[in-house]
Amino acid sequence: MQSAKIVLIGSGNVASHLGKALKKKKCSILQVYSRSASSAKKLALTLKSSYTNDISQLVTNADIYIVAVSDDAISSVLSQIAFQPSLIVHTSGSVSDTVFSDKFKQYGVLYPLQTFSKDKAINFLKVPIFIQANTKSSLKKVRDLAGLISPSIYSITSEKRKALHIAAVFACNFSNNMYAIAERLLVKEKIPFSVLVPLITETAKKIEKGNAAKQQTGPAVRGDKKLLATHMEFLKQEEDFKKIYTLVSQSIQEFASQYGAKK
Amino acid sequence: MQSAKIVLIGSGNVASHLGKALKKKKCSILQVYSRSASSAKKLALTLKSSYTNDISQLVTNADIYIVAVSDDAISSVLSQIAFQPSLIVHTSGSVSDTVFSDKFKQYGVLYPLQTFSKDKAINFLKVPIFIQANTKSSLKKVRDLAGLISPSIYSITSEKRKALHIAAVFACNFSNNMYAIAERLLVKEKIPFSVLVPLITETAKKIEKGNAAKQQTGPAVRGDKKLLATHMEFLKQEEDFKKIYTLVSQSIQEFASQYGAKK
Repeated sequence: MQSAKIVLIGSGNVASHLGKALKKKKCSILQVYSRSASSAKKLALTLKSSYTNDISQLVTNADIYIVAVSDDAISSVLSQIAFQPSLIVHTSGSVSDTVFSDKFKQYGVLYPLQTFSKDKAINFLKVPIFIQANTKSSLKKVRDLAGLISPSIYSITSEKRKALHIAAVFACNFSNNMYAIAERLLVKEKIPFSVLVPLITETAKKIEKGNAAKQQTGPAVRGDKKLLATHMEFLKQEEDFKKIYTLVSQSIQEFASQYGAKK
Repeated sequence: MQSAKIVLIGSGNVASHLGKALKKKKCSILQVYSRSASSAKKLALTLKSSYTNDISQLVTNADIYIVAVSDDAISSVLSQIAFQPSLIVHTSGSVSDTVFSDKFKQYGVLYPLQTFSKDKAINFLKVPIFIQANTKSSLKKVRDLAGLISPSIYSITSEKRKALHIAAVFACNFSNNMYAIAERLLVKEKIPFSVLVPLITETAKKIEKGNAAKQQTGPAVRGDKKLLATHMEFLKQEEDFKKIYTLVSQSIQEFASQYGAKK
């Protein structure tokens, strides 16, 4: 796949980061498509590729078409492709590969498991990539392409990929919401959020070898009812946070009872 | 406070980590007290100190007595101290300094904001320590002692410390519960938890400068109702996880509406 010819369908965070990483590995990005011409143009300039906002103008000679648009848009974008691409993949965690099956002969998925932000560089060497494809030869192509940018490539079914994506929502999006709530509580007290950073870093670091439930600390896992009650009282003005406090504390205690955690 | 004479009341994670860090900074740990003689002895051996499980046998000539027992036990332990210590502090995030005020003339708090595990070394240089004391001279002593092991020392009131502790519960204990749920979902699919580690690390790293809510990613902040519904359906066998999914997704959307997050 070295020097593969790529068309990027989409110009958001995933398309940008993947495009840049593949470009560095000597792939030719032939074209960027986006509904927004300005957005397509902007990414195309970075990748030294052509661009279009008219899907009927897609070039037809690429080796791989990478559809990196929002989950909702994948099916509609696919319906507008008027030729049979050599190989087409999407990058979604949650959309089944059956989205391709009516129409395309060679297709697959290339799902990079990471949170992509607009202005933050990503080290793909640390991004596991989950792949699938409908034929052996396509799977090899997807694997080779993914292998250019990451050493961690896993074959996965659509069903397992969905479970993985939900796990990622908990591990990433939901832990970030816990940070956001913590930050809100500190802002009210005029305490800088920076004081929590070492704690957050340590918490994330502690679970590198897994066993998160067994490594749980804090009042809920200790079964410290008095303290839980004090915290509830403190949160009475913050009904939403209080509900989350209750439910997550229960979940911690449920895990603890399963693991026989020490009090 | 260099070469301060310390008595540790308690022999758990906080007492152990603090004791070792202070010992390294040339403090003399005179004695370790614990209800459990074996536990007191074990820590005392590491710290080359004496030990006792009889609180009436506390030595009376230390500069600082550090009470690092569970929140529930602080008040009872204090009631058994039969002399007037030069200075006594506890290390709790949530117990008010008024716990001392009936009885003690010089007292304070030294709250290290970190998650302490039994077998994992802590770099105190990255642990913010929150202090208070009832007199200027005691505050100076507590500050000097804390300053031996950490460069980040903050004076704080009991009320603000409680808010900080609750924020820490969200940022640390609750994010860890999100990891535990993610791990459980992966175990069911026989996917190794290690694939989530780069995502967790990146998520924790992204918020080092704060603004967690603005950096939220995922289906909830995008308002992707279809995907949320798919995830709910997937979680229908896991009632507890489904409730958390619903509530945290709502919280993410509430933050997003406040910040006017991009869809």
